[in-house]
Amino acid sequence: MAGKTARSSAKPLLRTLAGEVLARPPWWLMRQAGRYLPEYRELRTKAGDFITMCLTPSLAAEVTLQPIRRFGMDAAILFSDILLVPRALGQRLSFANDGPALEPLSETSDLRRLNSERIAGQLAPVGEAANRVKEGLTADIALIGFAGAPWTVATYMVEGGTSRDFRRVKGWAYRDPVRFGALIELLGAATLEFLSLQIVAGVEAVQLFDSWAGALSPQGFKDWVIAPTRRLVVALKQRFPQVPVIGFPRGAGLLYERYAAETGVDVIGLDTAVPAKFASDRLQCRVPVQGNLDPVLLLSGGDAMRRAVAELRATLGRGPYVFNLGHGVLPETPPEHVAELARMMAEPLPIG
Amino acid sequence: MAGKTARSSAKPLLRTLAGEVLARPPWWLMRQAGRYLPEYRELRTKAGDFITMCLTPSLAAEVTLQPIRRFGMDAAILFSDILLVPRALGQRLSFANDGPALEPLSETSDLRRLNSERIAGQLAPVGEAANRVKEGLTADIALIGFAGAPWTVATYMVEGGTSRDFRRVKGWAYRDPVRFGALIELLGAATLEFLSLQIVAGVEAVQLFDSWAGALSPQGFKDWVIAPTRRLVVALKQRFPQVPVIGFPRGAGLLYERYAAETGVDVIGLDTAVPAKFASDRLQCRVPVQGNLDPVLLLSGGDAMRRAVAELRATLGRGPYVFNLGHGVLPETPPEHVAELARMMAEPLPIG
Repeated sequence: MAGKTARSSAKPLLRTLAGEVLARPPWWLMRQAGRYLPEYRELRTKAGDFITMCLTPSLAAEVTLQPIRRFGMDAAILFSDILLVPRALGQRLSFANDGPALEPLSETSDLRRLNSERIAGQLAPVGEAANRVKEGLTADIALIGFAGAPWTVATYMVEGGTSRDFRRVKGWAYRDPVRFGALIELLGAATLEFLSLQIVAGVEAVQLFDSWAGALSPQGFKDWVIAPTRRLVVALKQRFPQVPVIGFPRGAGLLYERYAAETGVDVIGLDTAVPAKFASDRLQCRVPVQGNLDPVLLLSGGDAMRRAVAELRATLGRGPYVFNLGHGVLPETPPEHVAELARMMAEPLPIG
Repeated sequence: MAGKTARSSAKPLLRTLAGEVLARPPWWLMRQAGRYLPEYRELRTKAGDFITMCLTPSLAAEVTLQPIRRFGMDAAILFSDILLVPRALGQRLSFANDGPALEPLSETSDLRRLNSERIAGQLAPVGEAANRVKEGLTADIALIGFAGAPWTVATYMVEGGTSRDFRRVKGWAYRDPVRFGALIELLGAATLEFLSLQIVAGVEAVQLFDSWAGALSPQGFKDWVIAPTRRLVVALKQRFPQVPVIGFPRGAGLLYERYAAETGVDVIGLDTAVPAKFASDRLQCRVPVQGNLDPVLLLSGGDAMRRAVAELRATLGRGPYVFNLGHGVLPETPPEHVAELARMMAEPLPIG
């Protein structure tokens, strides 16, 4: 990697994130802890609601470790949610079957009611969960923390949940970019605090989920994805220069390259639609890449899955590469398919 | 345009689609006929349901002409729906507030029950509507017909409506590509018939909406977007060599260029996320382009809209260019914003 020295470390994931090319690329899966696992569903039934699970350190830690025990991924990712940040800022949040629901912010809302100084206190349980996970992990498995990127968190805060066309949040950004910029700024500060407390508690890498990056126009992508991400990465690097940042701008499409060049993230997460050849030719020359098996292939399994996994590893494994999905594990995924994937991941790449 | 002779024609839209660069680029809007217009809502209330409006020639023609009377776009687009094809094939279809609902097809459904020979008879009213529209259009305004591309229509048929993750349709395609390929083939044949009857009735260009092209992995995009589109374009060109085909692979991202190079479409529709500079550098050297103002900008209006419109015209207007949105008009759009857009569209580009 240009300008980087590959640091040696015991953990395969961290070696790859630092730019090393390993004979056996490490792997983990977005949403690897969750509803597709019977042991998760059992605990969830007992615990009651999702937010309680996230904010009860013993439960969050247990759920984080469940997939590692079964499948031995190279990384655990802290069981948490990107919407804990708006909740900690003071916005009401609940989860129903069809997704999250927030009391929506609007252009006339008083942003001073959102207080980023509450993050460290409110989200301390996430740090405690990280502490507990670290105790349960063997020496070769890394712990990843995460947060939503400011744009994506803002979409939920303004739309009040998921959205099809993002008319409220984009409309605000178009009509009043200064005030919308203040919300993004505030979210940047809150995210910095949230990631900092995770890092202090022991996470060894962080991922920024910008799940709705693809909803923006090119100018919006520059203003609300690239610029705030760059500012956040700079601030993180000042505090924690050694902790790698994985950026995942889902749906960035034609702007993936620009995101890689301008944000300063150490690693790029690829969504399902990114061609492996593009990633290998245009992104891996800058940074390690992570991704991007279609979650529907893990759901349906069989020959199609095996072929696609082998192809991804053959193409991207020539450079620094973390195997992952292009989006989260689907709740209906049979655990046996993940077990089969784990067996494939245990094999080194064929030489040549 | 390489290999193309710009044909002269009275209608600005057709001149542009043939590759001419005009001082005043022509324009129309996806979903320019529809719920944002009070005269549409009034007619819709009288007519009852949406399918009746599509299949009653006098109503469909009237609704098609409404935006032209108000705003004088350079093209009318036939008021119709991409799901009329599965309905004509024999699948049950209804429209509720949250979108279309179809009785979903599955991997064990008998595809022989879907009969593409019924298209011409069942969808004859769409041809009649086209006839009527032609009578109401002045000599300089073109009439566009359209259909869904096979992949996108298949997603609705298999998911039973809109979908977030397309797990049913992609799962089928992964598990049994031969039989899924037969469905795509059948949809190709049906779409050919649907577009043919529109062309025979007088539409002068056709657009293929591949609204869910962006949901596929790169291999899926090759198999289910590029290949069926190419076959359909070849078949259309054999019947109607003079009728331009606009391909709109929404969300194609990094595969836009490949789509332009391999499908044989005459014109590329750009979604909201495509950077104008990319379109100008990499697509317009092959084909005219159409797009791609964010519909949320038309909804919110004002300075932000005016600036974005001027920028798009300045960048893309140097080549053959049809101004449009990057997705359909949102139902809440104030008609006054469209009127302001129309005034901007009446001006030629500044020279230089």
